[in-house]
Amino acid sequence: MSSSTFHTITYDGKRVVMLDQTLLPHEEVYRVYTSPQAVAHAIRNMVIRGAPAIGIAAAYGIALGAIQYSGDDSSDFEEFVEEICEIMAVTRPTAVNLFWAIRRMRARLAKSADLPVAERARALDQEARCIHAEDAEICERIGAFGAALLPPKAVVLTHCNTGALATGGIGTALGVIRTAHREGKMVRVYADETRPYLQGSRLTVWELQKDRIDVTLIVDGAAGSLLKSHKVDAVIVGTDRVAANGDVANKIGTLSLAVLANEFRVPFYVAAPTTTIDLETMTGADIVIEERSPQEITHIGDVAVAPDGAIAFNPAFDVTPAMYISGIITENGVATAPYDASLPKVMSVEPGK
Amino acid sequence: MSSSTFHTITYDGKRVVMLDQTLLPHEEVYRVYTSPQAVAHAIRNMVIRGAPAIGIAAAYGIALGAIQYSGDDSSDFEEFVEEICEIMAVTRPTAVNLFWAIRRMRARLAKSADLPVAERARALDQEARCIHAEDAEICERIGAFGAALLPPKAVVLTHCNTGALATGGIGTALGVIRTAHREGKMVRVYADETRPYLQGSRLTVWELQKDRIDVTLIVDGAAGSLLKSHKVDAVIVGTDRVAANGDVANKIGTLSLAVLANEFRVPFYVAAPTTTIDLETMTGADIVIEERSPQEITHIGDVAVAPDGAIAFNPAFDVTPAMYISGIITENGVATAPYDASLPKVMSVEPGK
Repeated sequence: MSSSTFHTITYDGKRVVMLDQTLLPHEEVYRVYTSPQAVAHAIRNMVIRGAPAIGIAAAYGIALGAIQYSGDDSSDFEEFVEEICEIMAVTRPTAVNLFWAIRRMRARLAKSADLPVAERARALDQEARCIHAEDAEICERIGAFGAALLPPKAVVLTHCNTGALATGGIGTALGVIRTAHREGKMVRVYADETRPYLQGSRLTVWELQKDRIDVTLIVDGAAGSLLKSHKVDAVIVGTDRVAANGDVANKIGTLSLAVLANEFRVPFYVAAPTTTIDLETMTGADIVIEERSPQEITHIGDVAVAPDGAIAFNPAFDVTPAMYISGIITENGVATAPYDASLPKVMSVEPGK
Repeated sequence: MSSSTFHTITYDGKRVVMLDQTLLPHEEVYRVYTSPQAVAHAIRNMVIRGAPAIGIAAAYGIALGAIQYSGDDSSDFEEFVEEICEIMAVTRPTAVNLFWAIRRMRARLAKSADLPVAERARALDQEARCIHAEDAEICERIGAFGAALLPPKAVVLTHCNTGALATGGIGTALGVIRTAHREGKMVRVYADETRPYLQGSRLTVWELQKDRIDVTLIVDGAAGSLLKSHKVDAVIVGTDRVAANGDVANKIGTLSLAVLANEFRVPFYVAAPTTTIDLETMTGADIVIEERSPQEITHIGDVAVAPDGAIAFNPAFDVTPAMYISGIITENGVATAPYDASLPKVMSVEPGK
């Protein structure tokens, strides 16, 4: 479902199969998981990453457990599934979609209370597949709305990995790129390597190469001269959270791109499923920025690149003010300024309309 | 001379001693060279780097050969020294200061034509020491002019390595920081790691740690949110070439910093010995930007971080338009806009005035 050339995560009711992202870009190894515990372990160890993809993996892990349950005591079944939910919830405590997916599975469990155990298990199996299918559909719709914004022979700069490896479908920002490519727009991509974790070089280049989309890797610092040269038609990034006023939290380095794009008059788009829009967060100032281990900067893999005792400051995200954003591409259309008016509008669109 | 805590390069008429920068930041090893050939080999293998430092090393290598010459035939001596100059010239063909230093040594050789061989050798020994001392003095003066621009308790963001490891003295941008620190301004430094070559993490952090100057490492992409937070009083960088209109070529990533500093109203300074000002180059558009090996991006050390066959674009420098630059700090004072008027002025100041 995720791509024609590789499969981030698949499920057949008996096993969950995941592409082991810890081995990318050097090896394409698929791991087979036949128990919820094994799935939880894989999430914890980053075999799969990317908020939407983690949510899908957790849902499949819960479904797997439900299907494997052998008794017919409904309350014991509930307890059994609840235990699996707990196991999933502690795998990656900061991934919002993980909790959202677990909530959906729990709600489906509650809703099925009057049914026999076997049917309850099938309901959970269905719900997990549904979460995955919905995410794939959201990616397709974001892709279509976004591709319409690009000129033919578009050259696009992107940051981090927002692709099939991070979602249940073609990706968000990379979904836009894939759709434009499919539509024959001859897309060329510049990918920021995205220090410190190198999602750009390790994952984005890998997955675009697999899909035979023309991709060129640059260091994050090279984006300035690239944007100034007017060789780029648009910058498209993903997001971890969109505030009510349109401020966007995303991978560290996004703000620099937005300011540079604005300065050199290149459109700057954010691809965002409406689930990432948080109208409770009034502005970007209200978003708490996670600080990660300095070791991600002072070391590359196990190799130290800075002297012993080096102090590093490693915020994982930054906040881009709405004023730098040309449009927020959702599955329900493209929101533009003023965002306090346009965001509630794209959120209230009925699915399928 | 370079610093109280380490010595990038020293010379005593018998040997050239260099700190082996290829082993930094993990080991502080001093290499002893007793022949011009060995010095040339060390330059080629990046034991020493940074344009001013390379020029000094080449001059010392030539002096070493001249001193070691045992005959008294003046024309044979000249031929002997000329051969050493040739050897030095092919070590790092793009380093401008290398050729400048060799030209100075050749000029001194020509000027001493009427003297006996032993005195000619002493003249070359003198000239090399003079090149080093002058560079150290230039750093001190840049430091003093630059430090005067900083407030007490200054927080400074810098890029790449422009320090004692790259010059014959306290450095250019780092010279400003060191001087402010000496003056009790309680400087705090944020150092960009400076991908792809990591001069920030490997060299700048190391040398500031040695001098007990408070330094915090960040990824290049984190400069945006840092500058937006108004926690930084000034950005100070070095330069490889300044054009007549004030456009500045410097390490890739500098343009991003300049645009961000401008956007968030943080002063952006360039520390530049007048030898880097090139009035023959009219604007930054006339500066040819060196493209380096993609492997610097796709690999870190010997380890591949991108998939096989990944295409990378690796410009070593970018050009920052003069409009983003608050001031160019030279050894003869701070040039400000309009640069076409101020740059010739700082270049025409007599030494010592």
